[in-house]
Amino acid sequence: MIEPIASALDWLGIVVFATTGALAASRKQMDVVGLALLATATGIGGGTLRDMMLGLLPVFWVSRPAYLIVCIAVACVMFFVAHIPQSRLRSLLWLDAIGLALFAVTGAERALAAGTDPSVAVAMGVVTATFGGIIRDVMAGETPVILSREVYVTAALVAALVYVALTLAGATRPLAMVSGFTAGFALRATSLHWGWSLPRYKPRPPRGRDHPPA
Amino acid sequence: MIEPIASALDWLGIVVFATTGALAASRKQMDVVGLALLATATGIGGGTLRDMMLGLLPVFWVSRPAYLIVCIAVACVMFFVAHIPQSRLRSLLWLDAIGLALFAVTGAERALAAGTDPSVAVAMGVVTATFGGIIRDVMAGETPVILSREVYVTAALVAALVYVALTLAGATRPLAMVSGFTAGFALRATSLHWGWSLPRYKPRPPRGRDHPPA
Amino acid sequence: MIEPIASALDWLGIVVFATTGALAASRKQMDVVGLALLATATGIGGGTLRDMMLGLLPVFWVSRPAYLIVCIAVACVMFFVAHIPQSRLRSLLWLDAIGLALFAVTGAERALAAGTDPSVAVAMGVVTATFGGIIRDVMAGETPVILSREVYVTAALVAALVYVALTLAGATRPLAMVSGFTAGFALRATSLHWGWSLPRYKPRPPRGRDHPPA
Repeated sequence: MIEPIASALDWLGIVVFATTGALAASRKQMDVVGLALLATATGIGGGTLRDMMLGLLPVFWVSRPAYLIVCIAVACVMFFVAHIPQSRLRSLLWLDAIGLALFAVTGAERALAAGTDPSVAVAMGVVTATFGGIIRDVMAGETPVILSREVYVTAALVAALVYVALTLAGATRPLAMVSGFTAGFALRATSLHWGWSLPRYKPRPPRGRDHPPA
Repeated sequence: MIEPIASALDWLGIVVFATTGALAASRKQMDVVGLALLATATGIGGGTLRDMMLGLLPVFWVSRPAYLIVCIAVACVMFFVAHIPQSRLRSLLWLDAIGLALFAVTGAERALAAGTDPSVAVAMGVVTATFGGIIRDVMAGETPVILSREVYVTAALVAALVYVALTLAGATRPLAMVSGFTAGFALRATSLHWGWSLPRYKPRPPRGRDHPPA
Repeated sequence: MIEPIASALDWLGIVVFATTGALAASRKQMDVVGLALLATATGIGGGTLRDMMLGLLPVFWVSRPAYLIVCIAVACVMFFVAHIPQSRLRSLLWLDAIGLALFAVTGAERALAAGTDPSVAVAMGVVTATFGGIIRDVMAGETPVILSREVYVTAALVAALVYVALTLAGATRPLAMVSGFTAGFALRATSLHWGWSLPRYKPRPPRGRDHPPA
């Protein structure tokens, strides 16, 4: 039995990621079916990859068409209202942040439930959280969001780590899920708001040469 | 037992998609093995993703190497004749249109045969039809064809919808397959020929601001 | 029981591909978690796709977290030393060459062990060898390495072909593996060193027109 909170967070993640897919498609001026394809691929893409790697087949949405229908409904709504947000790129980033933290938690949760090692569960959380956005950006011909200046992958990692650590420590599932989501979202939100980032790799002059590295 | 018509349409789809992969590789001036890789990935990529999501494993071409051999043969032929079409980009688009309508039908058919819900079968048809081209364009470093101005994803959707609807209505399989293919191809061909498109998302000025949306 | 040589080659391939992923991420100035994600996706991506297509689920690293840990460790080391190579692009290409030849052999080996046809085993070797790099380049927003001027996919094909042919001819596994790796790596290295390539597709004027092909 899936607990209501896990199910609610999963649905919320799908809706916000589907919205970002539809926003990306609207920026490319696609037609409504194009919005639906990108919304669906973004909404269920990360979880589909997770299920394929874990061998949980057929993947989750095959036996529950409601997932498809929700993504398509989101696309239809966005076709008419995508112009309302003052900046669609900005809206996309904030919704993406919510989906990122949600999917990191629910992805890790599904992997743990399948009996994986905790480290693998954290990795599955990160994959579920980041690949929806990667698939969206590749399909829309845009620069992958994981290359964003602000903290991104790290926020997914923190959300999955907090959830898995609290679960191993014996916390109740709602507490672990909400804590993981809050930690990951707070980190990404802080970074987006103040333009703050982790120390990044900085090119340094290579040893024994006068020219900059290629 | 696979009926001859389903099998024939499936093979035809693989040949035309493999040809578009080889054409894309020839535009990038790859060597003959590069043409073979892109031809194969385009020809069997959509069906491979469909089988992985449905859990029909190993995927269809693992137990039937003839699929690989046909894709490689197509690439070898194209290595010598790709210059003959007056415009390779134009040829690619028309062959892609045939493959799109074929795979939408055969993809939906395979999903229905696996016992999925009709809505999921339509989605699987669209995935099978569109992801071969997406994989090709990503591997060749080109703009994904789904962003094309003319009707594209919608043609796949119509082909899959017509096939599934006729099948549920009790039509014979050859009739449903040929009708689905014809509807999808006619839509894409009309759009390509007259440069016609569905209403696309149009940016509008955001509310309460003077600047255009980002 | 996995023989030590197969296991050693597999680990070496993962380490060198993970290093190329971390180098690509460092060129994009990602943070350390970004390096870890790209290192891991590059190191285990090709094998993950192979396992999903063969139906060997869950994929290989789910039951052995050491694979993840090694990729992450590689990323952490590279975060501090990536500036040392005089040219990171050049280092990336040479390490990629080693990984390419290794994964072509171990990918084909795993497919043969799963009972596939020899032609399918060769294809699986090529997929395992090339898709790690493709995934890396797509995630880093760079031009896919398979479009490189020098021999690339062909080197993977030669490595897999030599391994499968020697195995079918009754050679011992270590001999077949080392021969396959040597043949593939020598070909790619020769090509990289002398800038040599196979005959590539050359555009020719289309028949009966004055204008160049599109």
